[in-house]
Amino acid sequence: MNPASPANLTHVLTAIEAAATIAFALSGLLEAARKRLDAVGVCIVAGLAAFGGGTLRDVLLDRRPFFWVEHAGWLWVLLGLCALAMLFMRARHFAPTARAMQWPDAAGLGLFTASGTQIALHAGSPAIVAVLMGVVTAVFGGVLRDIVCNEIPRAFSDHRPYAICAFAGGWVLVGAQALGASDAVGLVCAAVVAAALRALALLTGFTLPRWSPKDD
Amino acid sequence: MNPASPANLTHVLTAIEAAATIAFALSGLLEAARKRLDAVGVCIVAGLAAFGGGTLRDVLLDRRPFFWVEHAGWLWVLLGLCALAMLFMRARHFAPTARAMQWPDAAGLGLFTASGTQIALHAGSPAIVAVLMGVVTAVFGGVLRDIVCNEIPRAFSDHRPYAICAFAGGWVLVGAQALGASDAVGLVCAAVVAAALRALALLTGFTLPRWSPKDD
Amino acid sequence: MNPASPANLTHVLTAIEAAATIAFALSGLLEAARKRLDAVGVCIVAGLAAFGGGTLRDVLLDRRPFFWVEHAGWLWVLLGLCALAMLFMRARHFAPTARAMQWPDAAGLGLFTASGTQIALHAGSPAIVAVLMGVVTAVFGGVLRDIVCNEIPRAFSDHRPYAICAFAGGWVLVGAQALGASDAVGLVCAAVVAAALRALALLTGFTLPRWSPKDD
Repeated sequence: MNPASPANLTHVLTAIEAAATIAFALSGLLEAARKRLDAVGVCIVAGLAAFGGGTLRDVLLDRRPFFWVEHAGWLWVLLGLCALAMLFMRARHFAPTARAMQWPDAAGLGLFTASGTQIALHAGSPAIVAVLMGVVTAVFGGVLRDIVCNEIPRAFSDHRPYAICAFAGGWVLVGAQALGASDAVGLVCAAVVAAALRALALLTGFTLPRWSPKDD
Repeated sequence: MNPASPANLTHVLTAIEAAATIAFALSGLLEAARKRLDAVGVCIVAGLAAFGGGTLRDVLLDRRPFFWVEHAGWLWVLLGLCALAMLFMRARHFAPTARAMQWPDAAGLGLFTASGTQIALHAGSPAIVAVLMGVVTAVFGGVLRDIVCNEIPRAFSDHRPYAICAFAGGWVLVGAQALGASDAVGLVCAAVVAAALRALALLTGFTLPRWSPKDD
Repeated sequence: MNPASPANLTHVLTAIEAAATIAFALSGLLEAARKRLDAVGVCIVAGLAAFGGGTLRDVLLDRRPFFWVEHAGWLWVLLGLCALAMLFMRARHFAPTARAMQWPDAAGLGLFTASGTQIALHAGSPAIVAVLMGVVTAVFGGVLRDIVCNEIPRAFSDHRPYAICAFAGGWVLVGAQALGASDAVGLVCAAVVAAALRALALLTGFTLPRWSPKDD
């Protein structure tokens, strides 16, 4: 068997997707813990962070069933993750966990951007709408997490490139398909570009130029 | 006529449902008053608290028409309730109203959990998803109320059992149906368990164990 | 050609609608700037303010495609508007822009109320629901903008008539149709009444009577 065979590729993608979903869920869990939510709040906010973006995309595109209805086992994984965290996690684990999660989170940004954009293109959306749906898939889980925790969404306010990496990745997919690339090639390119841009931003500490509208 | 005949039972259920909807609306009304919202804000927040949970469930399950579209008279009841409250309610009525509303609210938690779970099961949802829909029906009206009022949702942060009573009640319904009980028996058991757990929590002042992740 | 011919009327309506959408977008842009959001946040909040109300109405009525999917060019207009604002706008432009935008915003309140109510009536909603959908169309873009920016929605808390003008305009449309007026007449009357009430409120500084529930 050749390591790049389709079956192996599918396994790799599934593993990345699982790692990314867990990274998204952990971002919600850590935020909920910081806000001193109770057990219910921790589970709900972790669930919103993990599944909120894809669910909002599906509501907007009028697609059913949702990912977490079709694969309801993931809800059990989420509950188990939250239970384990509440049993074994201590405050001193928070900062290292948040740091470690940056990388699967970047991978998830890439994957969810690519899959969200592709789903919207298949549903017949115009290019700009499809790219926006990719951004919604990758970013709005975190946005809902922050709204419920009564914060301005970090994706809109921390000046570090996040949604904009998804935006770029979405256009890569649209461009690849316009150039006649196969679906698989387009998806991989889009995911890699979005994830690589995010990883680059993390490594360099690059921030978006500020719009500080002072009087000149 | 026997007092437990189906017609009488339906009347009793309708009366409990009406009382619970009014209790939910009043929780929104009191919160809006505390935040000094204007007349429009009071009506909208009361409406969100009363109908938001069921509406969100129906959006997620892609069901139409909503309860408040099919029974549009309820919107008039809500407007009338808000008008009466703004005319006759004084600050000294707030605390007693909130206390008195705890009991119809607990009844509503039971009823809306049972009906929400049942609707999702009928729509073919897996058990865990159906239970989650019961929780959404019973709890997310209050969550939307708190988000609009710029608070962290009380259901996620006050450490008193609320959503978790709905969660338990939902599993009672799933379990009853798995054991071959009739729909009516399952619904009644689920509603009674959820409401009784909530009432017990109110009477004993029980709180969920805190997750205060300090360094050990 | 007569200046009130249908073709000219359509042009006028399209121009008003464009101006109103831009006014709504600018309200989001200014709010995002005040909250020091980054470029992504500015674009998303401007988009929510411009398209959020109609999108929420369409989700509730289960209508597709959304306005911004069918006319995806508007998303480019929005991106261009935000780019221009971030390049050329200074803090000293904020207050005059907000003041100037009050008038197209009032026109938009009228137009979006009329069109939202009409769409809901065509979908078979009862009168009170249709009026509510008009209010949602005209008002909930601003509500979503304020929720994302972590503020209590201004429409619910500033005691100046806004949603209530939409509410009145919606009933004008329902009343006109009940009296047998043509769709066009009803729409124009509803839009004019809602916009005129808002303009009057702006000119007179009228505020809704406060509900300050103190002990008597």
